[in-house]
Amino acid sequence: MSGLEIIPMHGIGEVRPGDDLADLIIAADTEVHDRDCLVITQKVVSKAENRLVDIDPSDPLSHKPLVERESVRILRRRGELIISETEHGFVCANAGIDLSNVERGQAALLPVDSDRSARGIKDRLQARAGLDVGIVVSDTFGRPWRRGVTDVAIGCAGIAAIVDLRGTTDALGRELMVTEVAAVDEIAAAADLVMGKAEGICVAIVRGLPEEWFRPSGVVQEIVREPADDLFR
Amino acid sequence: MSGLEIIPMHGIGEVRPGDDLADLIIAADTEVHDRDCLVITQKVVSKAENRLVDIDPSDPLSHKPLVERESVRILRRRGELIISETEHGFVCANAGIDLSNVERGQAALLPVDSDRSARGIKDRLQARAGLDVGIVVSDTFGRPWRRGVTDVAIGCAGIAAIVDLRGTTDALGRELMVTEVAAVDEIAAAADLVMGKAEGICVAIVRGLPEEWFRPSGVVQEIVREPADDLFR
Repeated sequence: MSGLEIIPMHGIGEVRPGDDLADLIIAADTEVHDRDCLVITQKVVSKAENRLVDIDPSDPLSHKPLVERESVRILRRRGELIISETEHGFVCANAGIDLSNVERGQAALLPVDSDRSARGIKDRLQARAGLDVGIVVSDTFGRPWRRGVTDVAIGCAGIAAIVDLRGTTDALGRELMVTEVAAVDEIAAAADLVMGKAEGICVAIVRGLPEEWFRPSGVVQEIVREPADDLFR
Repeated sequence: MSGLEIIPMHGIGEVRPGDDLADLIIAADTEVHDRDCLVITQKVVSKAENRLVDIDPSDPLSHKPLVERESVRILRRRGELIISETEHGFVCANAGIDLSNVERGQAALLPVDSDRSARGIKDRLQARAGLDVGIVVSDTFGRPWRRGVTDVAIGCAGIAAIVDLRGTTDALGRELMVTEVAAVDEIAAAADLVMGKAEGICVAIVRGLPEEWFRPSGVVQEIVREPADDLFR
């Protein structure tokens, strides 16, 4: 395959509850093409969907009851850190709730159904601008065993979450047994390289992905591992 | 920041023990620029360094004693799958040993010191072609909780493993408390999007990363989490 471009989208500005992200993307300064994959940060999806909750700004732990409420299973606690499983099946710190880039006195919860959020944005871009794109909703998660956070996908639409290389052959002509690549997580990670946590870029375009990756999909269905299949839960 | 390009490098061909990857990159069909970051798959680094071991091709489990030998700690076993910690401190399946894209009857071990491997390639590209680049050695790891594999870094040189956003401000002007981004893992993931497990592309260029990310670094020192800091070991 040929190369990819990762392009930050400029001109979206601050997102507020009730804003329509499809309209903001259409009105932004960066042109979108058919078969682009747009990566949108969870933070602005949660803001647009008004998943903001008031907390006591004088109490640094006032979001902790929210973490318990938004968790279906607590995996680990250390000090103030809680690693838990959300209703979506995501395992992450503090049930994905965070306080950065929201107004003081507020906390942003994850979207209720981030695959549905992605589908809604995709469908509105199609309806209003005739654009045929993939959408990824990204969030920033830690990992066991490795320091540093990376962006992963918590929702997607119109772009493969998993690219299945089973049955194709390797470069020496032998059949590859199982290689299911979490393409959507690699796309989210690639987009984060141009986002910069502090620069106010909340959408990035990944341009040049293989045609056959554009298909109906969802992160919860394809990426979330069932607890019974999981060696670490 | 502006955008990134992810460019597959064509014309490297099959890598054999004793080959010099810097020479192969210089002779390849794709031009390299200063401040490019080159992502090179572990498989060809291991081949060039002759980290190949003969196994019995008639016995599908003949590499398992190697897995035990290359592990310092076994975390989980299920059926034939072993999740273990290597001497480098990487936690992965089968101690990073795999059999795809190597000759039948051989297994490829991880490089002894993949940061040193990266430094060697970087230094030789500098010495022979005057190129000032970052180098990432990538490998394909599974994750707990999420299906599908993604590429991560197992070695790097001249490019930040961790980009530390502590003390910078978020888009609303408040100080971000701790955001250490595992940039080198996001770079490895981005590169994998153009590699395709089966197409014989073993090097990709990530072009356009921020100037300040180019600095001395190493994956083992910056990314590997100490067991005492780790909630899942």
